[in-house]
Amino acid sequence: MREDQQKSMNGVHISVPDVIRKKRDGKELSEQEIQELVDRIVSPDISNRAHDSQIGAFLMATFLNGLTNAETSALTRAMTFSGYTFQWPVEWKGTVADKHSTGGVGDKVSLVLAPALAACGLRVPMISGRGLDFTGGTLDKLEAIPGFTVLLSKEDMQNLLATVGCCIVGQTEDIVPADKLLYAIRDITATVEREELIVASIISKKAAEGLDSLILDVKTGRGAMMKELEQSRSLARKMVNVGKSFGMNVTALVTDMDTPLGNTIGNALEVAEAIESLRNEGPDDLLTLTCITGGHLLFSTGKASSVNDGKSQILQVIKDGSALQKFQDMIVGQGVDNKVAQEICFGNIWKILPAAENILQITATSTGFVEDIDPLAIARGCHSLGCGRTKPGSPVLLEPGVILKKKLGDAVQSGEVLCEVHHGKILASDTHLNSLRNAIKVSPNQIKLRSIVVDVIE
Amino acid sequence: MREDQQKSMNGVHISVPDVIRKKRDGKELSEQEIQELVDRIVSPDISNRAHDSQIGAFLMATFLNGLTNAETSALTRAMTFSGYTFQWPVEWKGTVADKHSTGGVGDKVSLVLAPALAACGLRVPMISGRGLDFTGGTLDKLEAIPGFTVLLSKEDMQNLLATVGCCIVGQTEDIVPADKLLYAIRDITATVEREELIVASIISKKAAEGLDSLILDVKTGRGAMMKELEQSRSLARKMVNVGKSFGMNVTALVTDMDTPLGNTIGNALEVAEAIESLRNEGPDDLLTLTCITGGHLLFSTGKASSVNDGKSQILQVIKDGSALQKFQDMIVGQGVDNKVAQEICFGNIWKILPAAENILQITATSTGFVEDIDPLAIARGCHSLGCGRTKPGSPVLLEPGVILKKKLGDAVQSGEVLCEVHHGKILASDTHLNSLRNAIKVSPNQIKLRSIVVDVIE
Repeated sequence: MREDQQKSMNGVHISVPDVIRKKRDGKELSEQEIQELVDRIVSPDISNRAHDSQIGAFLMATFLNGLTNAETSALTRAMTFSGYTFQWPVEWKGTVADKHSTGGVGDKVSLVLAPALAACGLRVPMISGRGLDFTGGTLDKLEAIPGFTVLLSKEDMQNLLATVGCCIVGQTEDIVPADKLLYAIRDITATVEREELIVASIISKKAAEGLDSLILDVKTGRGAMMKELEQSRSLARKMVNVGKSFGMNVTALVTDMDTPLGNTIGNALEVAEAIESLRNEGPDDLLTLTCITGGHLLFSTGKASSVNDGKSQILQVIKDGSALQKFQDMIVGQGVDNKVAQEICFGNIWKILPAAENILQITATSTGFVEDIDPLAIARGCHSLGCGRTKPGSPVLLEPGVILKKKLGDAVQSGEVLCEVHHGKILASDTHLNSLRNAIKVSPNQIKLRSIVVDVIE
Repeated sequence: MREDQQKSMNGVHISVPDVIRKKRDGKELSEQEIQELVDRIVSPDISNRAHDSQIGAFLMATFLNGLTNAETSALTRAMTFSGYTFQWPVEWKGTVADKHSTGGVGDKVSLVLAPALAACGLRVPMISGRGLDFTGGTLDKLEAIPGFTVLLSKEDMQNLLATVGCCIVGQTEDIVPADKLLYAIRDITATVEREELIVASIISKKAAEGLDSLILDVKTGRGAMMKELEQSRSLARKMVNVGKSFGMNVTALVTDMDTPLGNTIGNALEVAEAIESLRNEGPDDLLTLTCITGGHLLFSTGKASSVNDGKSQILQVIKDGSALQKFQDMIVGQGVDNKVAQEICFGNIWKILPAAENILQITATSTGFVEDIDPLAIARGCHSLGCGRTKPGSPVLLEPGVILKKKLGDAVQSGEVLCEVHHGKILASDTHLNSLRNAIKVSPNQIKLRSIVVDVIE
């Protein structure tokens, strides 16, 4: 138990209604009040525990009146220390790093980046999540690899970081329990989309990993949680500020999510694309974003002399195969059979991954250039095919998804294939196909392509 | 089950988070949405019941964003029909009436008014409450009479209304259960003091009584829930509007609570004063307010040709003893022994009521006129002596309290008694006495007295 926790447990007790009233009236809560409120939210002693109605009321008051920067930091800190926090060996000091993305359509950067960073000498204790949105999360994708487990003991995690340098695992019950409780209530009380609550939820989980450096990929655009650039910038700024209050090096990239990232959307399809990228056969946009993200982390941990130097190092470990080797070592360390890992990394990916039974092609009806690919429409289409879940805990399908054969700005001939729809257990209907067809627009004129990274916030 | 309840149970189901989100965003909820939300709040089926966190969040969103008149009516209606509602014999049509006061220091009007109205031919099914504030509520006061029970079956209530014409009882579990649930949550989530929620809570309970006419006494001033006149007026207006939407005749009086009502504060002391008033030996302000309140009800039920005519009728039944007789019949009907009732009404009140062991006198230190009697300070003093409760369900003391010997504007000689402090189980301390002494101010100049009724809202 930390000293300030001890203090709040022994000190003057707050009244939960008084804290709610203060926030209701738009006043600033003290660090002590927030700490004790969180203690009361996670208290195992039912007589001391805040009532669910009080948590709902507090969240709504917070949603409507907001939190100051000091309150957001205090909430994040109290949440972080509501459970287990990782303490790494002293000799790792400065090398422990991770990345968090707010989530985008086709975003499989983590799968490529974690092993690439490990190949560059960093330790990446990546605790990731499952998708609650249109498509699966990082853990759902990795589970397309037979034998892969997201459940590692803390000892196994540390061993894997010591030997390989990276792991991608699920959150255990004892890590940031306050977030689990608060998120479950936010989810049913229409209080999810409040910036400060999002900041506290994300940063508390990353702070519990005991990181030296963190890079945040804040997506912006139709396929992102934050649709507007200013929203994304504001979220990024707050996360950077709160993250720094823990003593971590934190940088945020605001990146484009107005078009899908890479060519594939779907769990197994995205794993395949990540492995192709580790073979240096991936699409440009995915490689670019992986290099920039990794470059920033290598620079902020002092492993690179500049972000550009860091980018070159990432590119190098992809080109020389050492990142792919780390990926193989990581999945073996997380339960995948040696031969399976060998085959998926260096042999035929589709001998291992589950493939959809049917493939339908959507073709262009005119000649020109791809003017728009609506990421949300693609994601919704994939969701209808079973890629995502509608409630926590329900299964996702691994096989279905979409492969884009043309990307934004590509020249297209009438009749050429725009994308492939992979489906099986849930067959694509006319409605599905029509909405996917409408998601990709071809126009006579070439458009100007935006760069992926819109802003860097440090 | 009513038709519209049936409809909402069978119809399209709302999503509770969607309803919360709508209110969070300041949008107006439909009657159907509110009806179904209340159905979900009181649902005995746990899988269909709204989660406590959702009720807390909804209440906070409502607290901060308010409810429109239509929403307030819909909420009140849904709450009213969440439980049992009284249906009286057809031949009583037009005669069923009640009064509700928002609560004031020394307010014992109900004890005098209910029997007076019965003596004038009305039926008064008064469902009252216990005090949660500084002093006891109407039920707490009546329980100072040995044998008096506030628990009557619905059949006994109807019999008493048929034979005597009035009863004063407690709320049973099956009457407006939605209010009980919502109030318990409002109490711990800092969402009590929202006008529309207060309106719904008060009017739903009165509407469930199956009234033809209702008079509301909305107190204003330091001793009232609503301290500011405009707040009180606004609450009164909303209650009148919502009450009328049930087809009841509703009038609201906004009355002064910047000084205590009558001369006594304390449970047994107030019962004694009410009986003295029924003997036409009560203080002027109490008699005046009782007559005005009753006068409005007699006029609105058509029993009087004007409010003034109604006032005269009330005064008449007090003067001729028929109101006191109704009081005796009522308490006998509610469990009090005949001889006890005879003694308390027509003999020595203090042979029956429990009296405090000690009486302390507070005397004037200067000569002049009573310039101010702070009702809140008096109430706090009485609370310290045990008159009120600090949490629901805890007992109150019957004996202690304060008798004002001088009222606002009275001439005072230095050394004259200003008030008596009655105490016993909890002895009055120097602190208690000092704060009571400071509550009564004497100044050299006569002040201008305000009238009790500040505004009438119809």
